[in-house]
Amino acid sequence: MAEFTNHQWLLAARPEGALNEGNFKRAESPIPEPGEGEFLAKTIYVSVEPAMRGHMLETSAYAQTMNIGDVINATGVAQVIKSNNPKYAAGDLVQCPTGFQEYVVSNGQMVTKVPDGLNAEAVLSIFGGTGFTAYYGMVETGEVKEGDAVLISGAAGAVGNIAGQIAKIKGASKVIGLAGSDEKCKWLVDEIGFNGAINYKDEDLKKQVREAFPDGMNVFFDNVGGNILDIALNNLALNARVVICGGISRYNQDGKIPGPENYFNLVYKRARMEGFIIVDNLHRAQEFSDAMTPWLEDGSLKYQVDVIEGYENLPAGLLRLFTGANKGKQLIKLADPE
Amino acid sequence: MAEFTNHQWLLAARPEGALNEGNFKRAESPIPEPGEGEFLAKTIYVSVEPAMRGHMLETSAYAQTMNIGDVINATGVAQVIKSNNPKYAAGDLVQCPTGFQEYVVSNGQMVTKVPDGLNAEAVLSIFGGTGFTAYYGMVETGEVKEGDAVLISGAAGAVGNIAGQIAKIKGASKVIGLAGSDEKCKWLVDEIGFNGAINYKDEDLKKQVREAFPDGMNVFFDNVGGNILDIALNNLALNARVVICGGISRYNQDGKIPGPENYFNLVYKRARMEGFIIVDNLHRAQEFSDAMTPWLEDGSLKYQVDVIEGYENLPAGLLRLFTGANKGKQLIKLADPE
Repeated sequence: MAEFTNHQWLLAARPEGALNEGNFKRAESPIPEPGEGEFLAKTIYVSVEPAMRGHMLETSAYAQTMNIGDVINATGVAQVIKSNNPKYAAGDLVQCPTGFQEYVVSNGQMVTKVPDGLNAEAVLSIFGGTGFTAYYGMVETGEVKEGDAVLISGAAGAVGNIAGQIAKIKGASKVIGLAGSDEKCKWLVDEIGFNGAINYKDEDLKKQVREAFPDGMNVFFDNVGGNILDIALNNLALNARVVICGGISRYNQDGKIPGPENYFNLVYKRARMEGFIIVDNLHRAQEFSDAMTPWLEDGSLKYQVDVIEGYENLPAGLLRLFTGANKGKQLIKLADPE
Repeated sequence: MAEFTNHQWLLAARPEGALNEGNFKRAESPIPEPGEGEFLAKTIYVSVEPAMRGHMLETSAYAQTMNIGDVINATGVAQVIKSNNPKYAAGDLVQCPTGFQEYVVSNGQMVTKVPDGLNAEAVLSIFGGTGFTAYYGMVETGEVKEGDAVLISGAAGAVGNIAGQIAKIKGASKVIGLAGSDEKCKWLVDEIGFNGAINYKDEDLKKQVREAFPDGMNVFFDNVGGNILDIALNNLALNARVVICGGISRYNQDGKIPGPENYFNLVYKRARMEGFIIVDNLHRAQEFSDAMTPWLEDGSLKYQVDVIEGYENLPAGLLRLFTGANKGKQLIKLADPE
């Protein structure tokens, strides 16, 4: 197959400040041959997420670090086209670490087959890191329960919108989202079923949050950090749970970033702030899938994807996360399955 | 009894910035007569704690606010001298809200008798808010367990030194204290049984903490906040518990106080930061007493008091907490029991 080309994106330079196109470099290489026990697959979708910037740094807090010149790490869905591994046959759709490239060779590590009846978009938005993060963060760390008032930042993002839907399913009396445009806010309420949404760029953000939670919030699910975390900390109900899922306001910054001035409200409100990382809990993937499958089937949980096309747009797809362009899970589609 | 004088200290002005003598005003009044169902008691000891500054503000986060001209609120031990309440007889020693004054009339609310065999100092340092705070924070919020590495800030203070002793009793492999003088550090190690202590004023504080916890700390019990909290957040072990008990570095400040820059390590370390207030848990006082009594009896838990004398020194006793003058529980002794 060496006559065909594998288009790839490599790490050109580690991020300093905002991630930009200069961090990526295009490359072409021959399509590799699978060795003993390996398979070759063609990338169908690549999934991008904010934490990928961190993985591009010299020291990554919770993933293996890439070296300059490595293919950018990413998860996706690929279709097996040639296999020397008895577990996988040509035609199989698999979720695996595809990276930013058209073809990938795998020895089966970190690979799961896409279940029959599920499409790749559902897998990457619900039954993978994204959906499990929303589920674990809201249900286990956030301990959401009947009657809770819930605020979610980055609510129009991949994890945020699912976290909000799960809170509703679990009986939250009020789920409010923070998002970066009026159009996203409308989408959260009209399409996703949030009770309300606030544009975090509004000048009276503090006032709107206070008015939305006159009795304080029981759960704050934070994907953003910064000023938004401080405002939430100022509006906690007694025994509130602050779930630190992400901090996208931080990811594109270097140097000193102010911490939450209002952390001491954790004492006044007898509240807790807790972080988690879904990779610690992947042994429970089946449990998460089992919990969410009926919700997907009965329509109470909808997956939301934002798809752009073409391998040439892989970096652009990742950059969209930091400009807040995406609604729902950002995917880049490279090919149609056969 | 109106011929005798009740010496009192009143709230003269609400604190702005550091608490100082100008916040207090001396007063004299006749010794009151107990009414129906009330008793009159003579103050033996007054207990002071950092949170009292907050109670002197216009809005207190978790206690009733004092008005200008009110007697300063405080807890203490008093001896009943005249009683119209069948539950209390002249001579009884009681723990009650004495306030900053020599005589107090009580209707029995918030009053507990000092158990036979216990002296007032043990009651005020172990079997009251101070000891219960240390116990609840370390055992319930901190979930200290066998083998844990534990750091305590404000370790030479009333709560800190008990929290450290409890961690040792519960099997912590290492308990390190932060304190404000080399003499206090020596005291923590030589007298209280800490494994080590670090003077937080040392220039190489960061380095000393890092070297004391090469594998990170499992529990950080914080009485201080500020820079010390940030350093601890940078040295957490996986699944660490950060117990926010107090923030004395904050209490004497007004205006904007920087938050912990390193809060996001809660994510990297899958850790939690949690606040608590002991008044929520006073219904469990008997349980806490029962847990600590055998430790006191077998000598594994020692109470540490720092006593100054005279009603005229009541404000000075409180101010000692903010200059870090005290070792152990600060008490002001007003009289000997009869």
